[in-house]
Amino acid sequence: MGNPTAAMLVIGDEILSGRTRDSNMHFLAGELTKHGIDLREVRMISDDEVAIIAGVTALSETHDHVFTSGGIGPTHDDITADCIAKAFGAHLDVRDDARAILQAHYDKSGTELNEARLRMARIPDGAALIDNPVSAAPGFTLKNVHVMAGVPSVFEAMVASVLPTLTGGSPLLSQTLRVMRGEGEIAGNLSALAADFSDLSIGCYPFQKDGAFGANVVVRGADGARVDVAVTRLARELDL
Amino acid sequence: MGNPTAAMLVIGDEILSGRTRDSNMHFLAGELTKHGIDLREVRMISDDEVAIIAGVTALSETHDHVFTSGGIGPTHDDITADCIAKAFGAHLDVRDDARAILQAHYDKSGTELNEARLRMARIPDGAALIDNPVSAAPGFTLKNVHVMAGVPSVFEAMVASVLPTLTGGSPLLSQTLRVMRGEGEIAGNLSALAADFSDLSIGCYPFQKDGAFGANVVVRGADGARVDVAVTRLARELDL
Repeated sequence: MGNPTAAMLVIGDEILSGRTRDSNMHFLAGELTKHGIDLREVRMISDDEVAIIAGVTALSETHDHVFTSGGIGPTHDDITADCIAKAFGAHLDVRDDARAILQAHYDKSGTELNEARLRMARIPDGAALIDNPVSAAPGFTLKNVHVMAGVPSVFEAMVASVLPTLTGGSPLLSQTLRVMRGEGEIAGNLSALAADFSDLSIGCYPFQKDGAFGANVVVRGADGARVDVAVTRLARELDL
Repeated sequence: MGNPTAAMLVIGDEILSGRTRDSNMHFLAGELTKHGIDLREVRMISDDEVAIIAGVTALSETHDHVFTSGGIGPTHDDITADCIAKAFGAHLDVRDDARAILQAHYDKSGTELNEARLRMARIPDGAALIDNPVSAAPGFTLKNVHVMAGVPSVFEAMVASVLPTLTGGSPLLSQTLRVMRGEGEIAGNLSALAADFSDLSIGCYPFQKDGAFGANVVVRGADGARVDVAVTRLARELDL
């Protein structure tokens, strides 16, 4: 299809322990789809140096973009910036541009820019800052890796800062046919349709409602006319 | 810590496109934590043969258990069973035990066990069936990989079938201290605490409430007395 590809790395012990339910993955997935960037893989790992370095290295080699969430706050368990710098052999220290942003932010509220908060101004050499209109402390882009906060309101604001700077592809168009029959009853039609429309992706997502079985059939593709033809044929076959 | 380790593979285009928000990962994470099994990594991938085989191979080699969700229904895009069989070089065909379960289920409702539904009786040789009290079609365990459905009610029922058969470890004990100060203010205390209690995991999760900043400090460990000592010290230092 030629669209740019992406992967996501969700970083945080609290996700893997079940304490916190991640919402950033679902948000990013929807935004990338609208922007014509294909999210191919997501990995969720703990705040562990070896795991972060291995994850970001593997994903950045195999995708056009990698988005990370989590681990860039002021506390001792925030080690993402260090790991990304190590993964790319980049020098990491407090950078004047990031320090100025934090200084201005904390001056306004009369809060001290102490040593812990200054950790959030540690940005790898060569990285571009990602604007954070919520709580000031910036994210950054190093090579093809976009490093963002884990707090959902901040993550979402950072995605809004980054996405317009990336070249998108053709947004995938989709149509959904809601069928009140069990998957097993329409599977034959779907597999014949998939064979005849190999340029489209045809998914079937079952549900139960008031004790009856149904399925949402989703037909996706870059060419809206082809999607139309496929959905029309299926609707006719199923007498919808 | 010596607890068994686990990874999860979430399979499905609809998750990566943002159409569906996965809930199985969060459910499994909580259940594994209660059972003393450490979830170390989660990967979310599409219904793609190469991605599924690579994912399950990598994760099964490096963890005691792998749990998969998605792709075991009756339609053409349900290819998980085929991929797991290929990954382990196991023969895959309709198995009599699985067919009998489906036959009994569909006989009860007067539904035909057609070719599509029979796909759900395709189980690799050597695999143990996982009971599905919701919709009959079984999951299976092959080697250290537990293959389960993506529909949350079915996934959750299968987890309940499998977990009691697995040896758990010591459940991680945790205590949470809610602190109504910014992370940046308590970061120094936390990092000193983490240094003195290297056997514990100390996480800090910021939040905003009514415009004020706060943080939940979570102290985790296998030894409840040590967790107590650490939390008591921190509470004293922060005048709580």
